[in-house]
This record gives sequence, C-alpha cells and structure tokens, in this order.
Amino acid sequence: MSTDRYRSQYETYKSAVEKRLARSVNTHKPATLYEPIRYVLSTGGKRLRAVLTLLACEAIGGKASHALNAAIAIELLHNFTLVHDDVMDHADLRRGKPTVHAMWDQNVAILSGDELLAHAYRSLLLTRSPRIEQILAVYTDALVRVCEGQGFDKEFECRDDVTLSEYLDMIGKKTGRVISASLEIGALVGAGESSLCHVKALVRFGEHLGRAFQIQDDLLDVVGDGDEFGKRIGGDIVEGKKTFLLLAALQRASRPDRVILRSVTPNNPRTTGVRIDLIREIYRRTGAIDEARSEVERHTRLANRALGTLSESRAKSMLAWLAQQLVKRSS
Amino acid sequence: MSTDRYRSQYETYKSAVEKRLARSVNTHKPATLYEPIRYVLSTGGKRLRAVLTLLACEAIGGKASHALNAAIAIELLHNFTLVHDDVMDHADLRRGKPTVHAMWDQNVAILSGDELLAHAYRSLLLTRSPRIEQILAVYTDALVRVCEGQGFDKEFECRDDVTLSEYLDMIGKKTGRVISASLEIGALVGAGESSLCHVKALVRFGEHLGRAFQIQDDLLDVVGDGDEFGKRIGGDIVEGKKTFLLLAALQRASRPDRVILRSVTPNNPRTTGVRIDLIREIYRRTGAIDEARSEVERHTRLANRALGTLSESRAKSMLAWLAQQLVKRSS
Repeated sequence: MSTDRYRSQYETYKSAVEKRLARSVNTHKPATLYEPIRYVLSTGGKRLRAVLTLLACEAIGGKASHALNAAIAIELLHNFTLVHDDVMDHADLRRGKPTVHAMWDQNVAILSGDELLAHAYRSLLLTRSPRIEQILAVYTDALVRVCEGQGFDKEFECRDDVTLSEYLDMIGKKTGRVISASLEIGALVGAGESSLCHVKALVRFGEHLGRAFQIQDDLLDVVGDGDEFGKRIGGDIVEGKKTFLLLAALQRASRPDRVILRSVTPNNPRTTGVRIDLIREIYRRTGAIDEARSEVERHTRLANRALGTLSESRAKSMLAWLAQQLVKRSS
Repeated sequence: MSTDRYRSQYETYKSAVEKRLARSVNTHKPATLYEPIRYVLSTGGKRLRAVLTLLACEAIGGKASHALNAAIAIELLHNFTLVHDDVMDHADLRRGKPTVHAMWDQNVAILSGDELLAHAYRSLLLTRSPRIEQILAVYTDALVRVCEGQGFDKEFECRDDVTLSEYLDMIGKKTGRVISASLEIGALVGAGESSLCHVKALVRFGEHLGRAFQIQDDLLDVVGDGDEFGKRIGGDIVEGKKTFLLLAALQRASRPDRVILRSVTPNNPRTTGVRIDLIREIYRRTGAIDEARSEVERHTRLANRALGTLSESRAKSMLAWLAQQLVKRSS
C-alpha cells in the first residue's frame, strides 16, 4: 500500500474511534463532571492506542468492530492519566489547549479524571469475549503500572542518581505498558483458539514500539523542529526532566561535562538558551544522541520482527507502517 | 444472639478483612506510592462495607471466604474515595490522623488514590464466580455513581436552591450506591441458581441501610455527643454543608428563620457558637430533627423488612443487628 493509502486507512480507524468515543459518555449531570470530560474527549489526539487495539484484533484474525469498546476503554484510560498527570505536573496546556485544571480547577480535574476511569471500565465491560477476565486483568495491570510509572517519574525529579536502566524501567511502566496492553487486549478479543499463540507476538511488538516511541520523544525534544502546538526545543532541559539523552550522556560524559549536565534540574534559573545549546552539544559529543537514534531504530526493527509470525494482512502491514512512521516523525 | 455475641462475630469478620487487606497490596516500590497506601489501609475504620459483602454472601447461602477478595475490593474503593475527597475538601484529618495530602502532598494523594482503585479492581478480579461480569458491572456502576455523587456534592456547595430531593439523590450516589453494591456483590458471589432471586432483597436492604446511615450522620452532627476523634457538634453548620436537617428545615421554616438558615454557608465568619445553637433550635422547632429521626427509623424498618424473604441464618440476623446498631449509634 502507498503511504497515502495507509494514512487514509488510519483515518478510517481513527474516525470509528472518535465516533464511538463521543457516544461512550452519554451522561450530562453533574455538569461539573461531564462538561470537562466531554471537553477532554473533544480535544483530539492521534488516538494511537485505540487504533492499535483495533489493528491487533484484526491482525490476529478478528473483526476490528468487536474490539471497539475495548479500544475506547484504552483511550479513556490514556485520557484519565493525562488529566491527572497534568494536575501533578502543573501543566496548563495540552495539545495547545488549556488543561482541565486550568479551564476549571483542580478538584474538577481530579474528579473528572476518576470518572473517566470509571467509564473506561464500563466500556471495557461491554466487550463480548470468552476471555473477558483475562482482558480485564491485562487492563488492570496496565492501570497499576501506569500509576507506578508516574510515581517513579515524580520520585526521579528529586533524585540526582537515576540510572538509565531505572529510567527505561520507569517509561516501560508509565507509557510502555498501556501501549503493549492496547495490543494485547485487541489480540485477546480477536484471537481464535488457533491464533491464541500470536497474542505474545503482538505484546512484544507493543513493548518495542512503546520503547521506540518514548526514546524518539526524548530525542525530538533536542533535535526536532518543535511543533505547531508551541512545544519548545529543549523543553525537557528547561523542566529538568530525566530523559534518555540526559542519563546516557551522564554515563559517558567527562567530569566537567557531568557538572554541567547535573545542572539540568527543575526550574533552574541558569537554564538559558545558551545553556540549552551547550547541553545539546554535550548530548551530541558524548554520543548520547547517536545512542538514542540507534535504540529507536533497534526497537523499531525488533517490533517489526515480532510481527513476523503473523499471517500477512492489511492490519499487519499497517502495524509495520505505524512503527516506521514513529521513527520518521519530526514532532 | 446477645449483643456481645454479635459484636464478637463482627470482630471476627472484620479481622478477616484486615488480614487480607494488609496482604492485598504487597508491592513496595515506588515508595511515594505504596507507603501512603499502606498508611491509609492501616488507619483503621469499621470496615463496614467489606463486612456487609461477607454477610450478604453468607446470608444468601454462600461461603463468606469466597467473597473476601470482593470485600477487599469494596474496601479499597471506599478508601480511594476518602483519599481523593479529602484532597478536594482540604480535610487534614481523617479518623483522627493526618490525611495523605497532609502527611505527604497533594500529588501523592492523587496518585496513591488512583493506585488504590487499580488494586481494587485487581482484587475484585481474583473473585471466582460464573457471575464475574455482572459483579464487575455492579462494582463499576458504584464507581461511576460515587464520582457523580461527589460532583453533585461539590456543586451544591455553590448553590442556595438545593432541594431535599436533590440532596437525597446525591447521597444515594455518593454513599448509598457503594453500600448497596457491597451487598449486591456479596450476594452475587454467594447465590446459587435457586437463591438468585434474593439478590434484589439484599440490594434493597443496602439502599435503605445507606439512607438511614447518612441521615443518622447528619443528625449526629447536631444532636450527638461528638466523638473521640474531636468531631465538633455543629461541624456541618460551620462548614456550611447542605444536610438533611438544613434542607428539611428550609422547607418548613418561617421567613425570618429561613433568613438565618440561609446564612449556613462555607466559612461564614458569623457562624459562632451562639449562631450554631440558634440554628439547632430552628432545626428542632421546624420539626426537621423529628423528621430526620423518623426517616432513619423508617429506612431501618424497611431495611429489615427487605430481609424478610431470606431464610433464617446467623448472617441474616447479623445484618438486622447491624441496621439496629446504626440507629442507636451516638458518634
């Protein structure tokens, strides 16, 4: 298929998700709860996780429509984490629009986040599958992990001895598990008795995809073009976030460079434009940028290799195409 | 059975809950997440909802131990709501001890609340029952409702035209549904094919119990003895909370009394001790206190009547005894 064809296919899946998502929460009162929920669900996004669920279902031999309620549950879970994370990170913008606590207030954000999760389970429970208990267990495991990941992420903000392997473990929980669960759940919905052995392959695909996705995110913060939503280059450095680049550079840097890298802390007034350029230069000369690039490529390759055992299908090639898109994306 | 016998039976159920609860969350890292969770679960409480689940299971003919994971899930859900509600209400004390956001901070409270809910579903999913999907649907409905109830409660703080019926609907969601779900879930775990018809009776018992419980709570704020945890008499008046008494009194009060009742608003500096006594006097002379008392008694009676169709059993008489205890409690 041509790239245009893939893109238009993606839009077809995405619009099925959008349509069901808009209908998934059909209560209106109390307004302080359901208005922000409707707002969050209308602010867009790629709906990547939900589309992955549909594709996994199809790639393993099922009908995508059977996984739609589960896909919505994944998307609602993802949005629940965004609403609560934005409160915890004091982030006032998301996808270029005010966050819930910025539009309303913090209480509204806490409570509407909780309610998003409640409706997520409600949607998941609409799934008709003999494997519903296993699906719920995978989903709940993803929820447990995503909270743990956020907990580690917050702890890391206050520590200066975080290792690269701790970081990778953290992002595996914070972003990786929901992505691999998206695929696992789609696969569990779609698998027949004979294709059940392929569920693991899709989970592996998801794990590598998630890792590639996150490292690419870190990379784009220092080498990307920025994006239309005004994400600044070097934003992670300004926020003092522990990223793959910072931790890989710290492992390799000379003593004087390490001193400079250690100054990457939240709200450091010394983090000016010149300082950001210097830090990016250290990322480059320590080979951290090259390492990140090669890790993204390696995980993308491994993701594709994981698909190997699946029979050829449109959904399978779409998954491979999506993984490629991730490596190529510039924002 | 004698009261002492009931009490000691209650303690037996409660300690089974405590034991499993302490084991239910056996992860330790990240510490910022699991330390507060362990703290919350160690601060005690009556474990009423969990015990109701066990009793409902037994009263319908099942073995209480089969409902233990579900009972833990109910208790974790209840604690999740307490942690988040305390953040939203800026409450620094709960059961005489500092709340999570007071001990740690608000981010920790949001996140550990979320994780409590995740572990709640995990515990629920350990339940072995052919009716597991129905159990999960009831549980998720309770979660949806409890968030809606809290949403209405927060909305009511800013409104001066809340009616008694709106209030009753709100508490039905905020506290009633979790109580009735405790019973419904226990019953669904315990019921055999032939006793499935009794599930509804236990739900009805729970609905009336929940209502009696909440109105009694409102009543104790103005007629009770206070309690060992330093809950002040008139605390609801000081906080400007809409209660059964306030709304019932507003319905019946003369115009001058209504003016005084309208001054029951959050953080009103004019709410002194003298003012509290005056308001209590209005509650008395409008008959609001009598109405509350008779509503508590009526719902307790209806709760007991709902049990009528169940065969006699120790669990059934314990449920009836618990309902009586509620009416009698003074704190």
